[in-house]
Amino acid sequence: MSDGSDLAWLGLERRGEGRWSFELTSPLTRHDGKLYGGAGIAASVATIEAETGRDALWTTTQFVGSADMGDRIDCHVEVLARGRRTSQVRVTGTAGDHIVFAALGATGAARKGPVEIQVGTMPDAPAPEHGESWSSRHRHRQDPDNPTSWFQIAEMRHVEDGRYIWARMRDGGHTRATIAFLADMVPSAVVRAAGKMGGGTSLDNAIRYGAMADTDWILLDMDPYFGSGGYLHGAARVWAEDGTLLAVASQTATAMVWEGDIPPWLSEESRG
Amino acid sequence: MSDGSDLAWLGLERRGEGRWSFELTSPLTRHDGKLYGGAGIAASVATIEAETGRDALWTTTQFVGSADMGDRIDCHVEVLARGRRTSQVRVTGTAGDHIVFAALGATGAARKGPVEIQVGTMPDAPAPEHGESWSSRHRHRQDPDNPTSWFQIAEMRHVEDGRYIWARMRDGGHTRATIAFLADMVPSAVVRAAGKMGGGTSLDNAIRYGAMADTDWILLDMDPYFGSGGYLHGAARVWAEDGTLLAVASQTATAMVWEGDIPPWLSEESRG
Repeated sequence: MSDGSDLAWLGLERRGEGRWSFELTSPLTRHDGKLYGGAGIAASVATIEAETGRDALWTTTQFVGSADMGDRIDCHVEVLARGRRTSQVRVTGTAGDHIVFAALGATGAARKGPVEIQVGTMPDAPAPEHGESWSSRHRHRQDPDNPTSWFQIAEMRHVEDGRYIWARMRDGGHTRATIAFLADMVPSAVVRAAGKMGGGTSLDNAIRYGAMADTDWILLDMDPYFGSGGYLHGAARVWAEDGTLLAVASQTATAMVWEGDIPPWLSEESRG
Repeated sequence: MSDGSDLAWLGLERRGEGRWSFELTSPLTRHDGKLYGGAGIAASVATIEAETGRDALWTTTQFVGSADMGDRIDCHVEVLARGRRTSQVRVTGTAGDHIVFAALGATGAARKGPVEIQVGTMPDAPAPEHGESWSSRHRHRQDPDNPTSWFQIAEMRHVEDGRYIWARMRDGGHTRATIAFLADMVPSAVVRAAGKMGGGTSLDNAIRYGAMADTDWILLDMDPYFGSGGYLHGAARVWAEDGTLLAVASQTATAMVWEGDIPPWLSEESRG
C-alpha cells in the first residue's frame, strides 16, 4: 500500500466511508482534455488500497463515459467481502449523474507465500538514455521543455521502435498506482504489430501485481495479442530496473489507424 | 454471440430486463459442490451477450462469496453504456441476499476492423490423443467412465506435464462462454512453474477474445506470471485446432501447495 503519496498526486480526498473524490486536473488528462485511461485505473488502485488498508493484487477498470478537465469525479468504493487476508472491492466513478468508470479489484495483506516465483527474465532492452522521447511519430507530440496533459507528471522513452517503452514519474519513485498509470500503452503496440500506425481508445485497463521493487524507470515489455472485428487486445509485462517483474497490464481498445506518421488531429493542428 | 445454446447448458432463464437466473447444478460445481469458477465467468459472458445481442470482447468475473449446489443464482445485468458498436456491461450474481460474483465486460457488434492480426503462432504441442487424462496426480481425480462435478460436461487432457492442456465440451462445439468455462486452469500452472504441486482458489477469472473458429478441442497454452505474498497470477493463450488464437484468459488466485502428488482432500478420502 502507498504511504499516502497516491492520494496527493491524484488529488484524492476521503469524504466518508467508501466515498472518495478528485478533480480531473490537467496532469490526469489526455491530449484532448478528457480523462486519461491510466489515471482512471490509478484512481481505482489508490482508492481500493486506501479504503481497505491493503495492497492491490489486481484491478480492472472499465471506461464507461467521458469526463472533462475540471470535472469532479466521485468514487464510490464498495468492499464486497473482507476476509482475513483478502478484500474484494468494487468502485464506481461518477461525474455529476453519469458513470465515468467502473472497476473491480482485490487487495491483500502481505505475508510470505508458499510460492515465491517470477517466470521469465527481463529482456535485454537498450537503456532509457538510448530511447527516443515521445515525438511527432507517436500519438502525443510533446515539447520536452513544456509538456502538456499527463506528460506533465510522466516521462516516456521508446526503444526498438516501441517494442519496449521506458516510463517514469517525473517526481520519481513508484507505487502500484503509478505503475498502472504508466502501463496504458497496449493498443498502439497491437497496431504496430500489424505494420500500421495508430492506436485505440481503451475500453478497459487491467493489471495484476507481483513483488514490488525500488526503481526509477519501469520497462513496458509489449505483448500484443490480436486485433479483430475493430478491437485491439494485448498486454505488457512491467519490469523494474533490477529485473523484478512488477506487474502484467492488459487492455482491450477500439482500433484506430491512420495513414503516415502523424495522427489526424496533429495533422489538422499543423494545417490550422 | 451464441445461438442460445449457452442459455441451455448453463440453465439460464430471463426473468425481466437485465434479470437472469440459473440453478447451480452439479455440472457447474467443483469437487466440493461449490460454484466452479469457470461457470461463474461463463454465466457472465452468456448473460452480457444475451442481454445486449452482441459478442463478448472481454470479461472479468470476481468471486466474492460462495454458492452451493442447488442454490439459485440471480444475475443482474446492467448495461452501463450502449454505443453504436460497443456495450459496456456490469453483472452482479447473488444467491439469496449475498453476492456470489461481480463482473465487468464489453460486447461489440462484429465488423471488419482495420487491424486483423493475431500475434504469434500455435505451439507444436502433442495432440490430445497423446495427452494424459485428468488423474490422481492432478487436483481433480476422475473416473473417466463416471465423471463428477464439471467434468460431467468437460474433458481435459494434459500434455508435457501440464505445460499445455487440451480441453473440450463433451457435447462438442464452442462459444465464447464455453471457452471461458474451460480456461480456468492458470493457478496450478504457476505452482508447477515453481516446481511444486498445488493450485489455488480463484479471486477472479478474466478473458479477452480474438476471432472465433470451429474446433472440437482447444489448447490452453499456459503463461504463468508470478507467485507473490501468498497469491498466484498468470494467463493462458487459448488456441483452436486450426491455429486460431481464440482468446487469452488470466487469473489471480490464493496459493495452495501440498506435499507429494495428491491434494489433501483426496488423501483424506483415500484414508477414510
